[in-house]
Amino acid sequence: MTLPVIGLTEITRIATPDRVFGAVRDALIAHAEGRTSVPAPMVLDFPEHAGDCHVKAGYVDGSPYFVVKVASTFASVNNGLMLLVDATNGAPAAVLADEGLLTAWRTAAAGALITDAMTPPDVDEVAVLGTGEQARMQVQWLCELRPLRRVKVWGRRPEAVEALCAVFAEDGLDARPDGLDGAACVIATTAAREPLPVEAFRSALHITGIGTDMPGKGELPVEVFAGAVIATDDHAQCLDHGDFGNAVRAGVVGNDVDLAVGAVLRDGVDRSRRSVADLTGIGAADAAVASAVLARATANESISRQ
Amino acid sequence: MTLPVIGLTEITRIATPDRVFGAVRDALIAHAEGRTSVPAPMVLDFPEHAGDCHVKAGYVDGSPYFVVKVASTFASVNNGLMLLVDATNGAPAAVLADEGLLTAWRTAAAGALITDAMTPPDVDEVAVLGTGEQARMQVQWLCELRPLRRVKVWGRRPEAVEALCAVFAEDGLDARPDGLDGAACVIATTAAREPLPVEAFRSALHITGIGTDMPGKGELPVEVFAGAVIATDDHAQCLDHGDFGNAVRAGVVGNDVDLAVGAVLRDGVDRSRRSVADLTGIGAADAAVASAVLARATANESISRQ
Repeated sequence: MTLPVIGLTEITRIATPDRVFGAVRDALIAHAEGRTSVPAPMVLDFPEHAGDCHVKAGYVDGSPYFVVKVASTFASVNNGLMLLVDATNGAPAAVLADEGLLTAWRTAAAGALITDAMTPPDVDEVAVLGTGEQARMQVQWLCELRPLRRVKVWGRRPEAVEALCAVFAEDGLDARPDGLDGAACVIATTAAREPLPVEAFRSALHITGIGTDMPGKGELPVEVFAGAVIATDDHAQCLDHGDFGNAVRAGVVGNDVDLAVGAVLRDGVDRSRRSVADLTGIGAADAAVASAVLARATANESISRQ
Repeated sequence: MTLPVIGLTEITRIATPDRVFGAVRDALIAHAEGRTSVPAPMVLDFPEHAGDCHVKAGYVDGSPYFVVKVASTFASVNNGLMLLVDATNGAPAAVLADEGLLTAWRTAAAGALITDAMTPPDVDEVAVLGTGEQARMQVQWLCELRPLRRVKVWGRRPEAVEALCAVFAEDGLDARPDGLDGAACVIATTAAREPLPVEAFRSALHITGIGTDMPGKGELPVEVFAGAVIATDDHAQCLDHGDFGNAVRAGVVGNDVDLAVGAVLRDGVDRSRRSVADLTGIGAADAAVASAVLARATANESISRQ
């Protein structure tokens, strides 16, 4: 068996924002319509190396491939790959040695899509909580969908806040280190296990939370869910370990009040109401992005071989 | 990132029975002693192609790698690979493109080890139920541990029974197509969802079942568990979808009567008592075998580079 390994350079060239947005949007809608298979993820912990590894699998019905993704984070460094398997015969088709990049991009794309879909159209100011890779990407990918004017940053380390503001300033944004003051649109991107300061959410018309990827995490104060339109990328998963689940267990909302993110993307939503989107990450999005990259890589190869 | 892909030829050369037996035995004992991490497997079904894919992960504490295994079976053809990941930093280390071979071997090795450990030493006749790859391997690998004289084969298709008898005859065994008559040692290797004919088990002093790898399967008549010494490779997994779980749900035995296969291998067991071993397959065995192969492949490479 020869197993093609597609490296980071080619992946970066192929996975344009347009392709990633398209694949993730299709996957979220397919997931909302029950046209995906996404088994419960596996988690391995390596506390002695401050590491963990998440293994996710996903399939969008009718796709040529299904995907098994290995995503590790050790001492805050992401790594990993995606394995594509032929869904008609079970043969391994290719490895995308993406070092975790496609996971970051599909997370950014899913967040930006739902943030844009639920935030009133005239809002051009966001507050981003957290200073990591996703804090940067959530804003940058949202800029691909709507023009932003101002971004306010909050984080626990002032030097990280300053550095991220500098990046956003280079992107042409009015970037300020006063994320705690909040904004009409708030994006939470932390690995917090305790709720972030509630004042950051006081003026929010829309909140997107993308940080809860495993049990024990929780970044949104549960009271922000009360009375809001709620969207989850996967009902069971968000109930199990998302901020939505924390709010349900706190008795703030019922366990069946959420809309599917994919349904919101497909049908739209009343954007005059306050809203919260809880994203925990779904394997179907990995599958869709990886399949799109491999399909394009294969097409390129056919062309270059002619 | 360069990701070495180790192919079938090199794997076959490296994974000698001695190495596989040693790695699987160590893994089963480590698992019995709580020194492994084995998350619940993921399963994807592809009914339109008569296919399924099992993803397992495993880690033996202190090992340099953890392993994510993708094992698919489409129209009865096995395929798959094992990905080794550095357990100190989460970086993908290598792919063993084994097309499912190492899974077959570690299953054969685990079965042979526990069959040998629980069957009275003077028994040299086995009945094997099923005619697939594991029917052949369970007997052939058992022959590496103890001399066998006679093997009786049962299967639903007479031509498959005949073909397997011919293979065993070439191995020098007295092979007969009368597996239903049973033997002192019975090895069940089918994907049955209903119990196999009970008469095959009537004269059994020891029974090993290796066929139940997912919910809904079950090959052993539940009554064979009554009064027997029971060993399971993973307590929770066998309770969830092994033959042991079927017997517990039928009220034949309590849910806490089983010994760990690894404890039996480590400490031995009273072989004068009738016994049943239920194997569902553990990710730690995959991890151990794959790590042993990669360690050897790396050593070979260092040597050849000198």
